[in-house]
Amino acid sequence: MTFTQRLLEIQTKQNSLICIGLDVDKDKIPKHLLSASDPILEFNRRIIEATNDLVCAYKPNLAFYEAMGEVGMYALRETLKLIPKTIITIGDGKRGDIGNTAERYATSLYNDYGFDSVTVNPYMGYDSVEPFLRNKEKGVFLLALTSNPGSKDFQRLKVGTKPFYEKVVLSAKKWNTQNNIGLVVGATHPKELQHIRKIVPDMPILIPGIGKQGGDLKSSILYGCSKNGKLAVINVSRSIIYASPEKDFAEAARKAVLKMLEEIRS
Amino acid sequence: MTFTQRLLEIQTKQNSLICIGLDVDKDKIPKHLLSASDPILEFNRRIIEATNDLVCAYKPNLAFYEAMGEVGMYALRETLKLIPKTIITIGDGKRGDIGNTAERYATSLYNDYGFDSVTVNPYMGYDSVEPFLRNKEKGVFLLALTSNPGSKDFQRLKVGTKPFYEKVVLSAKKWNTQNNIGLVVGATHPKELQHIRKIVPDMPILIPGIGKQGGDLKSSILYGCSKNGKLAVINVSRSIIYASPEKDFAEAARKAVLKMLEEIRS
Repeated sequence: MTFTQRLLEIQTKQNSLICIGLDVDKDKIPKHLLSASDPILEFNRRIIEATNDLVCAYKPNLAFYEAMGEVGMYALRETLKLIPKTIITIGDGKRGDIGNTAERYATSLYNDYGFDSVTVNPYMGYDSVEPFLRNKEKGVFLLALTSNPGSKDFQRLKVGTKPFYEKVVLSAKKWNTQNNIGLVVGATHPKELQHIRKIVPDMPILIPGIGKQGGDLKSSILYGCSKNGKLAVINVSRSIIYASPEKDFAEAARKAVLKMLEEIRS
Repeated sequence: MTFTQRLLEIQTKQNSLICIGLDVDKDKIPKHLLSASDPILEFNRRIIEATNDLVCAYKPNLAFYEAMGEVGMYALRETLKLIPKTIITIGDGKRGDIGNTAERYATSLYNDYGFDSVTVNPYMGYDSVEPFLRNKEKGVFLLALTSNPGSKDFQRLKVGTKPFYEKVVLSAKKWNTQNNIGLVVGATHPKELQHIRKIVPDMPILIPGIGKQGGDLKSSILYGCSKNGKLAVINVSRSIIYASPEKDFAEAARKAVLKMLEEIRS
């Protein structure tokens, strides 16, 4: 089964397009957890237990774990073991390097940590992406039009009559011979999301930028989904995992996801 | 002192433009080291001891250490402690992410690991680069035109009459208000290197791709240096660190660097 087929199956079974971004920060987790032997892992365990029947994916942002050194990398590894195999995992590291280096990142993230998919930066071209695509069961979300203000600096530059990010979208489409490529398109660009979905009707689109970054849920669903109402992967991080700073953080996260699910289903 | 000033001073004092890429792979180091308590660290220690009077920089490629998990990250951290403060260190991770995430990468690489500089991918624009630029003593090498075959896929696309990578070069120039930005330009593109050096006469240029990747040393020096014959940082990895697969690997590395220095000085 290809990555995209599996994502579709999981989204159908879970009846959810929501991905929770596990961007965990020691300064932001409830204070009572700091006495646990591994506060980050304990935080993730509680969030995962409270939400895993409501989501299609979890996306740990590698920077947050790397910033904690070896302890953080250990917490990341153990967190992945807690995520049920019935849910997709996305390693959000936005890596991109020459072939022999990209191979190492791919081996580490897929085989060692066990991620189902990763985010990859397209700037260095095909040989920097290809090592992440070899196994059709593992997926790549290629950065196309990102949610941040800096997306205008290069991604929107015109190449001929088309914006640069569209060249990335077209390349992703061409490289997708094994049905395991998706794109990253920020919720902060609804019009462009609609346009991109027309170019790639059957490709997964990971959509970050809802909540703190100002992206809109309704337009993300409306424009980001494939015809069958799937393949948009709506990422939410801070507004879910830090829904409460108290002991009830996991229950509050669940409530926040349920509220979002209601909005999506209506 | 700004990063660029410091690099200039070190290149002058060491009388060297050479950077050794510490892309260390357990499968490639001499077999007798495998019985050491930390073979990677022992390998790096010997390479650094044998070459630190002949180089201006060391550049560990983060992928190679990440691929070894927590053990690798520990070896990286300890390796950095072995590099004399009189030599520049470059953390080659090609990171690039939204502001609040880029901040974490910057804190981790600069403060926690202690790198003097890092490589950064420009695709996500200014707010993804800015956190790496805040401290003028720390430097960024922004990917402009990379050494790999995939550099043609996006970096050479025409934006108006100019190639995309030139837009990155011009942005780097504009963002360089603290004199701590450099560029990455592959040795495999001598003509473009010459052109870029004209646009940024006083900016460091990290030049990978000599040796196995087919780049040429002579043209890299000729076209990559500033007017005073400095600010090109010539990276070599495999041809130096794996110059010998036997017990004499460190001496062989030293000989290989000396040979290269002779070529450069002539």
